[in-house]
Amino acid sequence: MLLANLGEFGLINRIKKQIKLDPSVIVGPGDDCAVIKFNKGLYQLFTCDMLVEGVDFTGSTDPYLIGRKAIACSISDIAACGGVPRYAGISLGLPLGIALSKADKITKGAIELAKKYKINIIGGDISRAKSIVIDVSMLGEVEKNCLIKRSGAKAGDIILVSGEFGGSIKGRHLTFCPRLEEARYLVRNFKINSMIDVSDGLAQDLGHILKSSKKGAMIYEAFIPVSPDVKSTQHALNDGEDFELLFTMPAKEARKLLSRRCHDFKAIGKITERSFGFKLESKNGKQTDLKPKGFRHF
Amino acid sequence: MLLANLGEFGLINRIKKQIKLDPSVIVGPGDDCAVIKFNKGLYQLFTCDMLVEGVDFTGSTDPYLIGRKAIACSISDIAACGGVPRYAGISLGLPLGIALSKADKITKGAIELAKKYKINIIGGDISRAKSIVIDVSMLGEVEKNCLIKRSGAKAGDIILVSGEFGGSIKGRHLTFCPRLEEARYLVRNFKINSMIDVSDGLAQDLGHILKSSKKGAMIYEAFIPVSPDVKSTQHALNDGEDFELLFTMPAKEARKLLSRRCHDFKAIGKITERSFGFKLESKNGKQTDLKPKGFRHF
Repeated sequence: MLLANLGEFGLINRIKKQIKLDPSVIVGPGDDCAVIKFNKGLYQLFTCDMLVEGVDFTGSTDPYLIGRKAIACSISDIAACGGVPRYAGISLGLPLGIALSKADKITKGAIELAKKYKINIIGGDISRAKSIVIDVSMLGEVEKNCLIKRSGAKAGDIILVSGEFGGSIKGRHLTFCPRLEEARYLVRNFKINSMIDVSDGLAQDLGHILKSSKKGAMIYEAFIPVSPDVKSTQHALNDGEDFELLFTMPAKEARKLLSRRCHDFKAIGKITERSFGFKLESKNGKQTDLKPKGFRHF
Repeated sequence: MLLANLGEFGLINRIKKQIKLDPSVIVGPGDDCAVIKFNKGLYQLFTCDMLVEGVDFTGSTDPYLIGRKAIACSISDIAACGGVPRYAGISLGLPLGIALSKADKITKGAIELAKKYKINIIGGDISRAKSIVIDVSMLGEVEKNCLIKRSGAKAGDIILVSGEFGGSIKGRHLTFCPRLEEARYLVRNFKINSMIDVSDGLAQDLGHILKSSKKGAMIYEAFIPVSPDVKSTQHALNDGEDFELLFTMPAKEARKLLSRRCHDFKAIGKITERSFGFKLESKNGKQTDLKPKGFRHF
């Protein structure tokens, strides 16, 4: 049997079943970040993201943007948990014959974005590899009352998003700005019940929230902000790497948020009981079951 | 110009020059672990190590030992700073066609060693890759008075090691037990001035201590514990991945340690002023300059 038959999430579940966590771990594997005890007021957040040539970028990608993306993905995970990024380690696998200028550009892209977000690069590792691999591990902090998990969605919650969806492959997957400011604005001023960053695709990542929260959802095609890069809602629902925020909050809070117009958030649907399922209402009012077709490595 | 012309340590120095660290970072990149402020009594330690197929293991290596080694390397780094490992994240790059049983064995090797050392596996990432890559990031804790850095060696210190050196490629590089218990025994009972784990080779890693501490050293061929896997002192000095402890301490403390015979530590030389250089005294009393030829990725 191949790993591809079981799938990426199947392997993660197998690993989760084998591990034991002590009480200092507030949230273990399976959310955007792990959460561990830190001090009286704060939790510590931890995330790691591996980018691989041929999967997350190509041989002709601007190397500056490879380094930039590696840091940006991890910031996005920290943001999705409501926290602030603080420290990063960068492990870099590079081919033996790589030009120094290319290696320099990769590290410069990572260092400059880290600097912009006041993240300390505290460590790393450099190894030979067949093709470029960059793995960023990042530590962040979050006030205990600001921590948002995937598992907190409640029936009746409004589902909201930042930004637009679909077609990030045309460039945004390399140049996106992680929604840190937006996420911090949300968790400090509103009651947010669940949040995730959209990396696998809008439908699939909403599916992660529903599974963790044991809920269902209805989303409305007419409300989904489709990027000008794509024509169809299908791409907006299933393309990966938008790195936008997807979150749920009580209806009253959502009205308050939408009335403020501080950031560009849009309501796209509502959380239901689990028994309802996961449905899309098309523009002509027809309801269909949503089967996420987002990105999976295996 | 190729990265190979500048070298691995050249690139690390270039990165170090570009980054700024805030005061919460006690030790930044360049030691076995980064050290950050944690709470009143403890510092937090952070390390990451990337293992790559064709460099750190081969296509025919027992996959269980690949996962095991990935965790063991990071424990060794935490031990070298005097600390205790607590949390690990595992990023795994796997070829598309990998058998599930092989993926399972890699994760089992990592999970079982983590469990043995009471390390919580709190996160990870799984990605497609051309060949197997495993990057472990690990967090640990150390009492403030137990933190040992590479930079603390003092002229007059005795240089000591655990275990034997050379020929780890014959198997020990996959099956070694990180010297955590030994390191904790040292830092809790003795005044240790500097410590490192030997991953690049005994001579090269002693060179790292000397460079960080701005000191010189004399080591004695007759005192170097040569592994039965190799015949010559040259291998013991320059082979990589012994994962033994290399440390320095005042002569009086060293006498106390060696009289206890609790663990198998051996004195191999002494720290001198920098102007002395870095020398090896051969068994026939001849002194020669030591030029480390240990492992470098580039």
